[in-house]
Amino acid sequence: MRRILLTIKYKGTAYNGWQRQNNAVSIQSIVEEAIFAITQERVTIQASGRTDTGVHAIGQTAHFDTEYDISPSRLIAALNAKLPKDISINGAKEVAPDFHARYSAISKTYLYRLYVDRIDDVFFDNLRHRIYYSLDMDAINSAAKHLIGKHDFASFAASGSSVKTTVRTITDITIDINGNEIDIRITADGFLYNMVRIIIAMLLKVGCGKILPDDIPKIIAVKDRRYTQSVAPACGLYLSEVRYQ
Amino acid sequence: MRRILLTIKYKGTAYNGWQRQNNAVSIQSIVEEAIFAITQERVTIQASGRTDTGVHAIGQTAHFDTEYDISPSRLIAALNAKLPKDISINGAKEVAPDFHARYSAISKTYLYRLYVDRIDDVFFDNLRHRIYYSLDMDAINSAAKHLIGKHDFASFAASGSSVKTTVRTITDITIDINGNEIDIRITADGFLYNMVRIIIAMLLKVGCGKILPDDIPKIIAVKDRRYTQSVAPACGLYLSEVRYQ
Repeated sequence: MRRILLTIKYKGTAYNGWQRQNNAVSIQSIVEEAIFAITQERVTIQASGRTDTGVHAIGQTAHFDTEYDISPSRLIAALNAKLPKDISINGAKEVAPDFHARYSAISKTYLYRLYVDRIDDVFFDNLRHRIYYSLDMDAINSAAKHLIGKHDFASFAASGSSVKTTVRTITDITIDINGNEIDIRITADGFLYNMVRIIIAMLLKVGCGKILPDDIPKIIAVKDRRYTQSVAPACGLYLSEVRYQ
Repeated sequence: MRRILLTIKYKGTAYNGWQRQNNAVSIQSIVEEAIFAITQERVTIQASGRTDTGVHAIGQTAHFDTEYDISPSRLIAALNAKLPKDISINGAKEVAPDFHARYSAISKTYLYRLYVDRIDDVFFDNLRHRIYYSLDMDAINSAAKHLIGKHDFASFAASGSSVKTTVRTITDITIDINGNEIDIRITADGFLYNMVRIIIAMLLKVGCGKILPDDIPKIIAVKDRRYTQSVAPACGLYLSEVRYQ
């Protein structure tokens, strides 16, 4: 028995999220079917975390156990030959039997992709969230600084999560602007349910002056989801990287 | 009667090219239908040139005549409300009655988008041409320099074009590299049928050492299509910009 860790890239548009479920096509079930086609083993793959409907991944990770004897590089090629065009395996390696894609992770980075335009861009459809107003990037940068650090992010957690604590540490927020394209990367030791999309929605409100950067500490302190409200659309969100020791 | 010049952006993947034809869905017919839906006029739009099946446009241009009274900015919004997600109107302006989208053009720029990877990228599907081998970019740059200038590009014209002369002037070739993504822009006073895709296929052969940069002048001089052979895939090609006086 060997434990294999896969790195998985997907365009989430056509799928009902990562997690296997009845009567809906999930990325997990498609990858498990591809593994079965090669190994003839019915495995359950354990991801670093779920992604919601329409959310993409550049570097989702997931592990599974197999008796099947194949080198990681041949496994990558064999799986990619079975997978549809919007899911690919970009890495595979053997890990220790006690390694866990979710519980061994020490940090994760999410990327949120925006663009500013009056008109929908035909090439960004489902790949970036469009905003039609220009943003005050200085205000957004100031607001982002307030989010960095160890905080109770209860104001930024959608209901539906059953976590022991809502304390998380955001170690980095970077904002890259290229013409009308804006890429925001948020790195933390972990994320609450919908946390990135709630943060992005709030940064957009900061960018158009509806929230002041200095309101952020108060919004964190109040620990009440009603003070953050909206959730940025799934299409802009990418699980970018999962890091292990 | 007013003559309107549209700037049109499209993802060509789902269409049988620009030009209207029976029993196939073209971008021209979709745009003409959108114009009819607003103006109730059956117009024929004249583009700067055809694009083939699967070829994209960032700045295709096309003109048409109308009696319908609407401002250019309202026309843009009205057309975009009718058009599918993979076609958009990004500009509209009134032009002189003798202006012609094709014959008034003084130069055009095509963009060809490549990426280098062992694995298909889920986000580049139909938007970039993948190559799996690394390229000698110095050799490609040297080869590109030989193409710049006024030349008889008969070696680079696919049959099927009925042009008076195969002499064209390439004024600029720029190559931008960003990680594993390569963007090649070629500007000329005009292009022969499949000329950009034949040039790109040849530059890729230069990049992997099958053709030397100094072979290019000979390939131009021989004026024989048999010396260039292949055509790079449509998915990487974008009509980027059409310029007028």
